[in-house]
Amino acid sequence: MKIRPLHDRVIVKRVEEETTTPGGIVLPGSAAEKPSQGMILAVGRGKVLDNGDVRALEVKVGDKVLFGKYSGNEVKIDGEELIVMREEDIMGILG
Amino acid sequence: MKIRPLHDRVIVKRVEEETTTPGGIVLPGSAAEKPSQGMILAVGRGKVLDNGDVRALEVKVGDKVLFGKYSGNEVKIDGEELIVMREEDIMGILG
Amino acid sequence: MKIRPLHDRVIVKRVEEETTTPGGIVLPGSAAEKPSQGMILAVGRGKVLDNGDVRALEVKVGDKVLFGKYSGNEVKIDGEELIVMREEDIMGILG
Amino acid sequence: MKIRPLHDRVIVKRVEEETTTPGGIVLPGSAAEKPSQGMILAVGRGKVLDNGDVRALEVKVGDKVLFGKYSGNEVKIDGEELIVMREEDIMGILG
Amino acid sequence: MKIRPLHDRVIVKRVEEETTTPGGIVLPGSAAEKPSQGMILAVGRGKVLDNGDVRALEVKVGDKVLFGKYSGNEVKIDGEELIVMREEDIMGILG
Amino acid sequence: MKIRPLHDRVIVKRVEEETTTPGGIVLPGSAAEKPSQGMILAVGRGKVLDNGDVRALEVKVGDKVLFGKYSGNEVKIDGEELIVMREEDIMGILG
Amino acid sequence: MKIRPLHDRVIVKRVEEETTTPGGIVLPGSAAEKPSQGMILAVGRGKVLDNGDVRALEVKVGDKVLFGKYSGNEVKIDGEELIVMREEDIMGILG
Repeated sequence: MKIRPLHDRVIVKRVEEETTTPGGIVLPGSAAEKPSQGMILAVGRGKVLDNGDVRALEVKVGDKVLFGKYSGNEVKIDGEELIVMREEDIMGILG
Repeated sequence: MKIRPLHDRVIVKRVEEETTTPGGIVLPGSAAEKPSQGMILAVGRGKVLDNGDVRALEVKVGDKVLFGKYSGNEVKIDGEELIVMREEDIMGILG
Repeated sequence: MKIRPLHDRVIVKRVEEETTTPGGIVLPGSAAEKPSQGMILAVGRGKVLDNGDVRALEVKVGDKVLFGKYSGNEVKIDGEELIVMREEDIMGILG
Repeated sequence: MKIRPLHDRVIVKRVEEETTTPGGIVLPGSAAEKPSQGMILAVGRGKVLDNGDVRALEVKVGDKVLFGKYSGNEVKIDGEELIVMREEDIMGILG
Repeated sequence: MKIRPLHDRVIVKRVEEETTTPGGIVLPGSAAEKPSQGMILAVGRGKVLDNGDVRALEVKVGDKVLFGKYSGNEVKIDGEELIVMREEDIMGILG
Repeated sequence: MKIRPLHDRVIVKRVEEETTTPGGIVLPGSAAEKPSQGMILAVGRGKVLDNGDVRALEVKVGDKVLFGKYSGNEVKIDGEELIVMREEDIMGILG
Repeated sequence: MKIRPLHDRVIVKRVEEETTTPGGIVLPGSAAEKPSQGMILAVGRGKVLDNGDVRALEVKVGDKVLFGKYSGNEVKIDGEELIVMREEDIMGILG
């Protein structure tokens, strides 16, 4: 089963970082906090503008992204924990 | 009796998932929480834009959708419990 | 005496449902709660858009509509209890 | 002395209803509450739109209008108690 | 020393009314409350619209205006107490 | 070292008024309160409009301006205390 | 590993100032407070406007900028503490 996110939403699979890896991204505070990094699994058609046009998203499937720890809504699909969030919640693309 | 939702609203019939099914969608927390998955029964004509145009909705009748557990307003029609929500409240289409 | 509602407002006469009727609409909770169903008695000229244009309303006189229990303002005209609400408060048209 | 209201404001003189009149408008609650009905004494030039245009008001001098009990600001001019409110606060025109 | 107000702001000199004058404007409540009436001393170039255009103000120097008792910011210039407010805060022009 | 403010921000150097000077501007309350008057040291390129255009600011370097006592953010540059604020926070130009 | 910030976001590396340097920027209060000064390491493509156009940012890589102490989100990449913020949070460019 798959989700096709609506409009400017994306589906993100959280990447569990080893918090002791020197090159890993860790939010400040406890090293045991869940890192807010993930992989884009699906993207919506784009953001609906005030004039009715649709603007395609800047992120694409496969992008590794950074996002706020509490962004989006968590869902479980086929036993897999995913996050549905808006592109607006994504801070940047890692690469 | 039927409801024709206005503008960007849709009528959704909640689908009761077996929470133990491996492929089912379960929101995190208690497995006994009501899953937020449903079937679109009716859609409005579209969202009225600032310039007066109407943008047709992206979801259509028959779509299986995912939505926030507290989205929309519950109504009972002909003994059937339905939810009236805005397309904006729908996170994605399952398929 | 009549009211001509302004802009995107409508005049609704609440329909008192028998809460035990199987086909009736009952909001969840107590069966004794006032049902939020009514008949449109009058409609405004339409919503004034940001550019000054007026968009005609989608509901019309005679429509049976569903609305939130606390929507609008109640007024009594010629001994009749009516509600003045905005089209935006109407969830759908019953038919 | 007169007030010329600015933009989308109007000057309303409250009409004191006999609350026992069958055809009168009485807000729900105590029959002794001040009715929210009045006569338009003056209107502004119109609402200034985002693009700078001015949209003339829909109400005109002499209209008998219905409005929320706490709408607008009360002022006393030449011993007469008046209300300055925005057209947006007017629910409908009585006639 | 003079102030040239920016954009849609105006400089108002409060007019102290004799509260016992029959033709004076008195806000409801205590007759000793400061009346909210004043004279326009200076006006800004106009309101900057979303598209960058400037809309000239409707009030002009010399207008006697009515405004909410707590509108604007009080300043003292050359020993004179003045109020800087936005045209939006002015309810109407007296005349 | 200098700051070039971004967009619609300006750099203001607060002018310490002698609060006993008859022609000085003093905000109401204690005469010992810091007066909110200053000199514009630098201005941004202008406010970015919704359509992407940039509107040049109305204030310019050297203007003596009046502003709310708590407007903007205080910074110290080369030992000098300055305020970074938006043009919107400036009430008027003194002259 | 690098971050490419989305839209109107930028990546800033905080510059630790010696708080006793006469030419340094110190926010008022304790001299031991972290100064809010940094270097731009990466910029997004630009702010997405209401009409779908993208406006390039005014800051560029290498700019030394001033920003509010609590602006943006701190992240650690390859052991380096960085801040992801919106251009809107930047008060000015130092030079």
